[in-house]
Amino acid sequence: MQAARLHEYTDDMSEALTVEDVEKPEISTSGQIIVEVEGAGWCQTDNHIIEGMWEPYAEQNLPMTLGHENAGSVVEVGDEVTTVEVGDSVICHPVRTCGQCRACRLGNDMYCENGAFSGLDTDGGFAEYLLTSERSAIKLDDIDPVDIAPHADAGITAYHASKKAVDELVPGNYCVLIGIGGLGHIGLQAVEAMSAARTIAVDIKDDALELAERLGADFTVNSGDENVADAITDITDGAGGTQVLDFVGADSTTNLAPDIVSPGGDHHIVGYGGHVHRPSQDLVDGEFSYQGNLVGTYTELQELIALVEQGEMHLTTTQYDLDEINKVAEKLERNEIEGRAVIRP
Amino acid sequence: MQAARLHEYTDDMSEALTVEDVEKPEISTSGQIIVEVEGAGWCQTDNHIIEGMWEPYAEQNLPMTLGHENAGSVVEVGDEVTTVEVGDSVICHPVRTCGQCRACRLGNDMYCENGAFSGLDTDGGFAEYLLTSERSAIKLDDIDPVDIAPHADAGITAYHASKKAVDELVPGNYCVLIGIGGLGHIGLQAVEAMSAARTIAVDIKDDALELAERLGADFTVNSGDENVADAITDITDGAGGTQVLDFVGADSTTNLAPDIVSPGGDHHIVGYGGHVHRPSQDLVDGEFSYQGNLVGTYTELQELIALVEQGEMHLTTTQYDLDEINKVAEKLERNEIEGRAVIRP
Amino acid sequence: MQAARLHEYTDDMSEALTVEDVEKPEISTSGQIIVEVEGAGWCQTDNHIIEGMWEPYAEQNLPMTLGHENAGSVVEVGDEVTTVEVGDSVICHPVRTCGQCRACRLGNDMYCENGAFSGLDTDGGFAEYLLTSERSAIKLDDIDPVDIAPHADAGITAYHASKKAVDELVPGNYCVLIGIGGLGHIGLQAVEAMSAARTIAVDIKDDALELAERLGADFTVNSGDENVADAITDITDGAGGTQVLDFVGADSTTNLAPDIVSPGGDHHIVGYGGHVHRPSQDLVDGEFSYQGNLVGTYTELQELIALVEQGEMHLTTTQYDLDEINKVAEKLERNEIEGRAVIRP
Amino acid sequence: MQAARLHEYTDDMSEALTVEDVEKPEISTSGQIIVEVEGAGWCQTDNHIIEGMWEPYAEQNLPMTLGHENAGSVVEVGDEVTTVEVGDSVICHPVRTCGQCRACRLGNDMYCENGAFSGLDTDGGFAEYLLTSERSAIKLDDIDPVDIAPHADAGITAYHASKKAVDELVPGNYCVLIGIGGLGHIGLQAVEAMSAARTIAVDIKDDALELAERLGADFTVNSGDENVADAITDITDGAGGTQVLDFVGADSTTNLAPDIVSPGGDHHIVGYGGHVHRPSQDLVDGEFSYQGNLVGTYTELQELIALVEQGEMHLTTTQYDLDEINKVAEKLERNEIEGRAVIRP
Repeated sequence: MQAARLHEYTDDMSEALTVEDVEKPEISTSGQIIVEVEGAGWCQTDNHIIEGMWEPYAEQNLPMTLGHENAGSVVEVGDEVTTVEVGDSVICHPVRTCGQCRACRLGNDMYCENGAFSGLDTDGGFAEYLLTSERSAIKLDDIDPVDIAPHADAGITAYHASKKAVDELVPGNYCVLIGIGGLGHIGLQAVEAMSAARTIAVDIKDDALELAERLGADFTVNSGDENVADAITDITDGAGGTQVLDFVGADSTTNLAPDIVSPGGDHHIVGYGGHVHRPSQDLVDGEFSYQGNLVGTYTELQELIALVEQGEMHLTTTQYDLDEINKVAEKLERNEIEGRAVIRP
Repeated sequence: MQAARLHEYTDDMSEALTVEDVEKPEISTSGQIIVEVEGAGWCQTDNHIIEGMWEPYAEQNLPMTLGHENAGSVVEVGDEVTTVEVGDSVICHPVRTCGQCRACRLGNDMYCENGAFSGLDTDGGFAEYLLTSERSAIKLDDIDPVDIAPHADAGITAYHASKKAVDELVPGNYCVLIGIGGLGHIGLQAVEAMSAARTIAVDIKDDALELAERLGADFTVNSGDENVADAITDITDGAGGTQVLDFVGADSTTNLAPDIVSPGGDHHIVGYGGHVHRPSQDLVDGEFSYQGNLVGTYTELQELIALVEQGEMHLTTTQYDLDEINKVAEKLERNEIEGRAVIRP
Repeated sequence: MQAARLHEYTDDMSEALTVEDVEKPEISTSGQIIVEVEGAGWCQTDNHIIEGMWEPYAEQNLPMTLGHENAGSVVEVGDEVTTVEVGDSVICHPVRTCGQCRACRLGNDMYCENGAFSGLDTDGGFAEYLLTSERSAIKLDDIDPVDIAPHADAGITAYHASKKAVDELVPGNYCVLIGIGGLGHIGLQAVEAMSAARTIAVDIKDDALELAERLGADFTVNSGDENVADAITDITDGAGGTQVLDFVGADSTTNLAPDIVSPGGDHHIVGYGGHVHRPSQDLVDGEFSYQGNLVGTYTELQELIALVEQGEMHLTTTQYDLDEINKVAEKLERNEIEGRAVIRP
Repeated sequence: MQAARLHEYTDDMSEALTVEDVEKPEISTSGQIIVEVEGAGWCQTDNHIIEGMWEPYAEQNLPMTLGHENAGSVVEVGDEVTTVEVGDSVICHPVRTCGQCRACRLGNDMYCENGAFSGLDTDGGFAEYLLTSERSAIKLDDIDPVDIAPHADAGITAYHASKKAVDELVPGNYCVLIGIGGLGHIGLQAVEAMSAARTIAVDIKDDALELAERLGADFTVNSGDENVADAITDITDGAGGTQVLDFVGADSTTNLAPDIVSPGGDHHIVGYGGHVHRPSQDLVDGEFSYQGNLVGTYTELQELIALVEQGEMHLTTTQYDLDEINKVAEKLERNEIEGRAVIRP
């Protein structure tokens, strides 16, 4: 089968992946399944993997097929699979979890002690077929897998962080969302659907802010035109954002925390371009946290699909063929992808 | 009356405060009270205030009487005071809260929009008499105010952070406590009393670790002799600390987080000597937080006093006269104070 | 001034209250205020008070002016009042809290150890003037007090219970609301605004169900036409309601719990007409709770007002003069009040 | 193999179960294991099952081998079992969970949609061998399975309820525990280990109260000698118990709630002899809940074993042979079992 594989780390996205012929994967345990990939989302993290940025964090044996946002149809199932069957449309949580370790037991799929992460430390979905397990698959009834493939990672990452924020928000509070791109526009819709907090969308691009307004943002701040901290102080009458969702995670955005997070609030790190770097005393004085966020769980993917089914979550996608994949990598690098790119292997 | 006052910021602790004669404070509103100070704890924060480190965070009009850990007996009460009376022994929460703002209504005394913080932005308790309000006073029945004065700030700060940690700890988890000094030894007792987690005490001084063992620590790590991250990995069999209480907050301790905090755990910043400084990706990969902590609330001071009454919280103190106050400042700077210094004005 | 007072308990609503001339209240402490009542909501609880149903629970010295849902304008303030001033429009939380006890400190206004509840154990707002305190008043900026007076009790009671429910609801869950009357239609709007759960409205009246649909209910069940448990089982595909808000609290509605509450869910008792009466084994087998609900807090009233300001909470009211008050009592008894009755003293 | 089986429901415990020869179970799926039962706890629920009390709640095909508190050693494992191996000592969670349904994913083993409960709706451990799955087994390192078998159900039931209570308890609060028998004495130790609340043990037997004192109870109340509500009011100075753990669940104990639960507190139903039966208004007035409790989860069993390993949880057991099993049933009926009975098949 055809697969787009990473052979060595590079900063040159025009030669990032090689589309080549590889063996079709085979089922080896009773709970595994094979999915014919119909849509596989391209993610900023794919660029980061190609650059070698995840090498210190994950065990990567190159060459490796990338692609962690996968959806398609089941074409083969292991002996003891009961929850999906051949022909079912499914979206795949990126982690093949063991289901036995304490983390799995507690529903913390991302901390599975024996997990494999498609496209990060094992072969992913930029290929005709994906090997995964029934534990990772969620059956789709009336939703086209291609339309929602990015929810498998971008979606649950944004949802996961937003859900934590929502748990702390009450009417009258403000929620600040920084970066209304692929993840941010999902997070915004989640906050709007699940809370009555007032939302403030921050981005440097006017069309991102227009999208934010269409999706329900109560206020927008263009970080190119305005001092973000001052703008938020004005909007909130000095109260700041009870919760801040930072989908950028650059030095310039994490540095805003002391000035824009309400006392006792949280600055959620979702994007991870830069550093957090502040005096400890800042965190003490404002009693805020820098809260890391790592993808989401299988049950959160279920909840996100419920939002899609209820019409409360819309995703803008552009589709590309597998052999256009390096073009996609380049476009994202240049910030030229509209919505979310989905590869159709 | 005699009071120890700060006239200008200095790094020279031998000339930090001036003991001088000032007007005795007077009651001006119906809820205020005057407390004759019997014990006033000296805190690392006093050194920081003297150095000017809080000037960017708080409005300080010098000269100002320092002292934010105050206990004594009520000598005068405003017209409408009902909860304490003249003669009562009391410990004083450091903030005179308004009781009207939303933060006060929610019990978040530290975020009071109209509060004054004794010894930080208004005159404190290194003086014969302290002006405060009934909202800040907790009546003591069978406890000597001098013995527990430091609980008014050091105590509730350690308790407040520990309580957050305890909320996330279950049997089988590990809790790491870094720095078993004034705050740390209180925090350790709180974690021991309120959870069944295994505790790991980290300090550079052997006598601090011996104290930790006497107070119930399950494991100790001398950070001078051992690589702390390796030691914690060994003790926890790779699991790390579900919660880390960092009573130091130096660069060297906050930097431990990615290596010692369990996935999804928290690194609580209580001490504030240095910075937090890590790639955003670290927080994402380990999904941990840097969680700021700011003193504690009035109701937490009540809970801490309950622990004292139940015999589950012991405090080592050394007493000094008011005119020895700069000696105390110097000793603390040199790390020579045993337990917690209490000034007896 | 004119006031509608209860002289003795009775089941005859036509003679429930006596409109008579009484002394205008006077300020006696520094934090009190006098409010000229512009609107005072009539509540099912008023009927219950008149019937003597609260006599075992509250200390009532008759004659007493009823009325616990009060809004109007401030006409006099105590010496130390700072948060409202003469001329301000305000809505009044029904409890005059002490602000000093531990319950008040924790924000649990309803558990205040020294509180007085307007119209329940002290004179209320079916009168030209109401004595209360600044701690009970929330300033209104652009909202007409008459329009929202019922939020002072009906509103926060429904909001308080709904907020507890919302805390347990995620997308894909179902929330069942029983009784879409005065409280229920507020609760429904709160659940819709603050969660993405699917809502199932249950009532015996078609027009109540039509209102529910207009306010966003996803499903409706007419309890006169259908077996409620079967209907909910069908709608939820056997999952049941993760949270059930029972605004009726009759034997017939509390008895539904074992059949309609999802495992681990809660049946919130808001209305209190009847009993909870089930084998303990039912609660064990389904691990559900019967959860009592008592009005709401001052900060919840702030949050509810925020919902009103954001246009996410609408209240249907009908206005009556003070001398029509017994007519209102009778009409409610006969279930003939449309929306919520507001008395204009 | 020998097994003690229920052939028909009866109130005559002398003829409750029949010890007879049955087929040894066989492994049929890749994750199953066979455990040689070394200890199987006898539970009040076994008596209830024999009486037919669970027939309306569970699908029971008689004859059925009872026994849901099982521990022993692994003698056979399915093809894909990885977490235990032949020869391992294990304790078995009573439910064989599917690991695929949403409840399992969230860690709510008791709500598994496809689960089988040993000794309740499928053959249990009053037999030489037990068929279960690796998902139900926890490996024991230095603990004798026989000593702790009852933790498999009695233990986690008490722990589960106590953990909920502990989450709501702070120092200064009171926790009331009603019934210091098999479950109660476990719950008491859990509350003592995991909180700093003051504990009040209530029982009708002096030796139960003596045991409570040895295990750390701060106060005891003999319900035969004293009015329980009055005694608790006295001890708590009117505050009541923030949390009440009712291991009896009889009418007489559930009826105490309005008088002994603090405002906003919970009355946890663990035992299930009788009914909850109170006016809805009681729950409203005191804002308390009746909270059902259903066994506990696999991860809670891990936590409980951690408590055992740390020496914070002691269990009194008496051992019996399989052919004494009806004697055990009779003794428990007459309240004559000391500690917890363990059958050694």
